[in-house]
Parts: sequence; C-alpha cells; structure tokens
Amino acid sequence: MKIVVIGAGAMGLRYGVLLQEAGNDVHFVDTWEPNVEAIKKNGGVHVWRDGKEERFVEISISYPEEYHEAPELAIVFVKDMHTVETMERCKPFIGENTYVMTNQNGFGGAEYIAQFVPRTRIIAGTAMIATVLKGPGKVDFIGKRGGGHVHIVRVEGEPNDFIYKVADEMEKALMHPTVQKDYMGTVWTKLVFNSVVNTLCTLMNIKMGQFAAYKNAKEMARKLIDEAYTAIDAEGIKMEETKDALVDQVMYVSEVGNPLHYPSMHQDMSTNRPTEVDYINGAIVRLAEKHGLQAPFHSMLVDLVHLKEESRKYNE
Amino acid sequence: MKIVVIGAGAMGLRYGVLLQEAGNDVHFVDTWEPNVEAIKKNGGVHVWRDGKEERFVEISISYPEEYHEAPELAIVFVKDMHTVETMERCKPFIGENTYVMTNQNGFGGAEYIAQFVPRTRIIAGTAMIATVLKGPGKVDFIGKRGGGHVHIVRVEGEPNDFIYKVADEMEKALMHPTVQKDYMGTVWTKLVFNSVVNTLCTLMNIKMGQFAAYKNAKEMARKLIDEAYTAIDAEGIKMEETKDALVDQVMYVSEVGNPLHYPSMHQDMSTNRPTEVDYINGAIVRLAEKHGLQAPFHSMLVDLVHLKEESRKYNE
Repeated sequence: MKIVVIGAGAMGLRYGVLLQEAGNDVHFVDTWEPNVEAIKKNGGVHVWRDGKEERFVEISISYPEEYHEAPELAIVFVKDMHTVETMERCKPFIGENTYVMTNQNGFGGAEYIAQFVPRTRIIAGTAMIATVLKGPGKVDFIGKRGGGHVHIVRVEGEPNDFIYKVADEMEKALMHPTVQKDYMGTVWTKLVFNSVVNTLCTLMNIKMGQFAAYKNAKEMARKLIDEAYTAIDAEGIKMEETKDALVDQVMYVSEVGNPLHYPSMHQDMSTNRPTEVDYINGAIVRLAEKHGLQAPFHSMLVDLVHLKEESRKYNE
Repeated sequence: MKIVVIGAGAMGLRYGVLLQEAGNDVHFVDTWEPNVEAIKKNGGVHVWRDGKEERFVEISISYPEEYHEAPELAIVFVKDMHTVETMERCKPFIGENTYVMTNQNGFGGAEYIAQFVPRTRIIAGTAMIATVLKGPGKVDFIGKRGGGHVHIVRVEGEPNDFIYKVADEMEKALMHPTVQKDYMGTVWTKLVFNSVVNTLCTLMNIKMGQFAAYKNAKEMARKLIDEAYTAIDAEGIKMEETKDALVDQVMYVSEVGNPLHYPSMHQDMSTNRPTEVDYINGAIVRLAEKHGLQAPFHSMLVDLVHLKEESRKYNE
C-alpha cells in the first residue's frame, strides 16, 4: 500500500516504520525543520526498543510541499492543535481516493480533518501503544515488539474493503488492529482511558506502573470511569468496553503493558508545553454539562492540571 | 497568668514566647528529647522573624514529669496524633482549676483532651498564624509582628471570666484574639480554610502566595468552600463566616497575610511524614456522607494527597 505519514514524531515514526517493514511503500512528511533536516541528512532514523537494541532504519522524508504523489492512505500524527495548519499544507496531495487516518490522542482529530476530506474517507482510531521521541530523527518504541493494539473505525459508514485492507497491513506489522463499527464509542473509550492514567501520572509526576502500584489506584480509576460513563450514557454513545472492563484495562496496561512509561500529557507538562487536559477530562465535563449532569472528579482534575501548568515556573 | 505550654514546637513556642513577653509566667514542657536538651543547654530559644531579625529568648523548659506546679492555663500544641499520649504524661499537673486550651489544626484536638479534662474547662480555637520550626530550639515567626489573629471558644458553656482573661493576655501579646460562642462553628471554619489552602499548596508544592497568584484560584476556593458548606449546613453547624467571606479570607491570607508560607501539610509532605488530610478534607467527606450527600471535590483531593504520599519515594 502506498502510505504517507504526516508528522514524523514519536507515533508517526512508529506507525510508519512498522508499516514499511511489513512491506508497504511509506513516505514521511513533516513541518518541523530540525527533524526533517536531520532525517534527510542521515537518510533515516535511529530506533530504540525500551532504550535498548538501537538500530538504523532508512526512511524517505520531505516537507509537505515537496511530495507530489497520490497515496492510498495518509496517516496523521501531529498534536491536536496543529492538525488544521498541517492539513492545509498537505491538501495538494490528498487525492480523490486517498483515505486519511488519525489515531491521535484526545477528541477532535478526525473533526479537524473533516474540513479537508469527506467523512466517509476518514478513519479514526485509538492506539494503545506508547512511544517517545528522543530528539530529531531519534525514536524509542516502548514495550515489547508486537505488544499493544490499535482500534480503527470509519468516521462515517460501515467497515468497507479499504479499512480491512489497512487492518491487514497493520496485522502484518504486528500492531494488532481491531476494526470497530462505532466511531464515537471508539474515540470516547480511549479518551476515558487517558482521562485516568494520563492525568493522574501528570499530576503526580509518576510512571504508569507507579500509579498502578498505589493501593487505591483501582478505586480511583473506577470513580473517574463511573463518572465519565454517566455522561457518555446520557449522550447515547455506545462504548467499546463495559465500565468494569475499562477499569481492568487501565490497571493492566499500567501494570503490565507500559509500567515504565510517562504518558504523553506528562511529557507536555515536563517540557513546559500546554497540556491537552481540556480535550480529555475537560471534554467529559462539557459532555456532562450538556446533559444537565456534573462531573466533579474530572472537573477538579482539569483545575489541578491547569494550576500545575501555572505552577511549573516555581518548581524548576 | 501562670501558663504551661505543652509542646515546644513551632506554634507552641510562638504562643509561649509572645505570652511570656506580654508579662505572663510561662513554662514549656515537651517530650521530644533533642528539643528539650537543646533548649535546656542554651537556656532558651533562637527566634527569627521571616528568616531575619534573629534574637535569643530565655525560656524555662522540662519534660512533663519534671513539672510540679499548678498552672491556670495549659496550652496544647502537639500534632493531633500525639495528643492523647502527651496528655497522659501531663495529667499530674492538670489541677482542678486548670483550663486547657488547644488551637491545633484539624478537627479533634479538643475531643482528645476531653478524655482528661471536663469540657467546660477546655478552650478550643483556631490560629491564623504561621510559624516554622527550623530545628531543636530554633523557631521562625512568619509574618509581621501583630499580624494574624486567633479565635478562641469554650468547648462547652458560654464565654466566662476566665476566657476573657485569656483573651486579655493574648491581646497584650498582639495576637488579636476573638472570643467566639460556638465551638463547632469555630473549629469547622478553620478546617474549611485549611481544606483549600493547605491541601492545594501541598499537592502543587507551592507557597500560599503562589496559589493566590493562579488566575482561577478564587474559583477553585469557591468550589471547595461551597461543597463543604453544603455538608456543614446539613449538620446544622453555624459557621463564623459566610461562604463569600471565607473565600475572601482564603484569598487575603494567601495573597497578603502569608504569601511566602508553605502550609503545615506541605511541611509534613516534604519531610516524609503522613499528612493530616483525613482530618481535614476527609472530615468534610465524612460529614457529607453522614447526611446522604457527596463531597466529590474534597474526596478527590483526599485521594490525590494519599497518592502523593505514596509517590514521594519516586520523586526524591
């Protein structure tokens, strides 16, 4: 499959490298100059697995304006707040048959992309995969090879031949894809997952396994998940997992899957960037309010993350 | 007035030194050996004001078993969890006419003392005064001389001659006492104050002025105070301050009164001791539950403080 990856950051590189190694024709475009220049100069990227097993992978990269082919699939992996400006620059190579896929964090990636591509040609999804960019052209794949999994779903329409073809390629790349039928349920399931682990690890400055080791971790997860599901039920969204199953998933992924990982919000907090908390816990609070409900646990977490953002300057 | 101060820590030394300098006959008893031995050896304590203006104050100190006089007033300033064992050792010098006063943090100091002294001879109260022990025999009085204020109240009975006599001595010591009529209202007012500032500064590792500088600080204070008052109203406790007045007080004390101060819970957190959060925010949660209500904001803060206590070992 001819694939372009938009955004050669941590997750974009992970997807692109794995899909290339599974036999696809992959090209990367990026707008971050130091990254593009470093990869161009080296002709590829340095890849680690859990900080070890360094290897070099040849890849092809360019700025969006330098790419003139018509990919079957474009995979978007930029930060939520940069989606629109990046898509604007990539518009020329999104052909009439190109599907665009996003497995970005938070809620909204697919909605931004829908300004450029019909919803029937957008594939949304969620990645239970952790990856860390160590610097321009340097990426660390967290977790064992073949660990983690990916859910993909069409934003509009039933699963079709194309999405199953994408799933086949991901399967060959050992990414363990599942094709889902319900867009909203898929996105909200990951969002609620993140609203627990991402946010608590960020507030406490701890890794996922350190959260899971706390004696009341499961109880805290349950409180936050229960509150979120009340709002989600009111909206009529059908989740991928029951509440109990999601609590178990939070604990399992934290304890067994990625115990040494700092979630992405933690990375934003510790490098002085704004966090995505308003798109995660904040989205739950707004959904509750839309239905005349309250989500005080999530609301308190939003307040605390913002207070911590403003307090960073005192704790350096 | 003949006064014994039980517990020559930060607050005990502040009260005792100020009352001695106002002309009272003050003696200290303490059970912490390094402190007693240092003060005995030096014949007094070193006192700073906001880290400056160091001076030496002669004081008299002993272990409880070495004190055999009959004070008119005993002032208790030990940590909540040590009240009972300390009172056990002090029992011999609590005479038939001795009043016992506690301005300890949290809820419960007076209740422990009531195991040893009739409730009509117990004076409870709250101190809006910040002080830091720098080490054995070394104490830093935070805030300007004459700053802060103290509320005192009889645990049972109307204000009588004795409590006004205590107030007179405190007034001479520039402690700005107010004699209150309602025990529960007095204690809960301070507890709710602490449930905001103490807890948030501890979670965020910031000073009171840094909390006040956060653009949504007042809104956060209001959410926590509103939730606490709902439970307190259900119990029928008459607070000293309206909700609005307490929000203003939180902001004023943080911004103007003690902006450079880390609250006592922060001191416990940063020196690896258990915090008093179960006696502060936890007391609000239990009061709410008693009346079939919920206090989710405070409940989340209790969870987070405990998670932070357990996470300290990762962040050293």
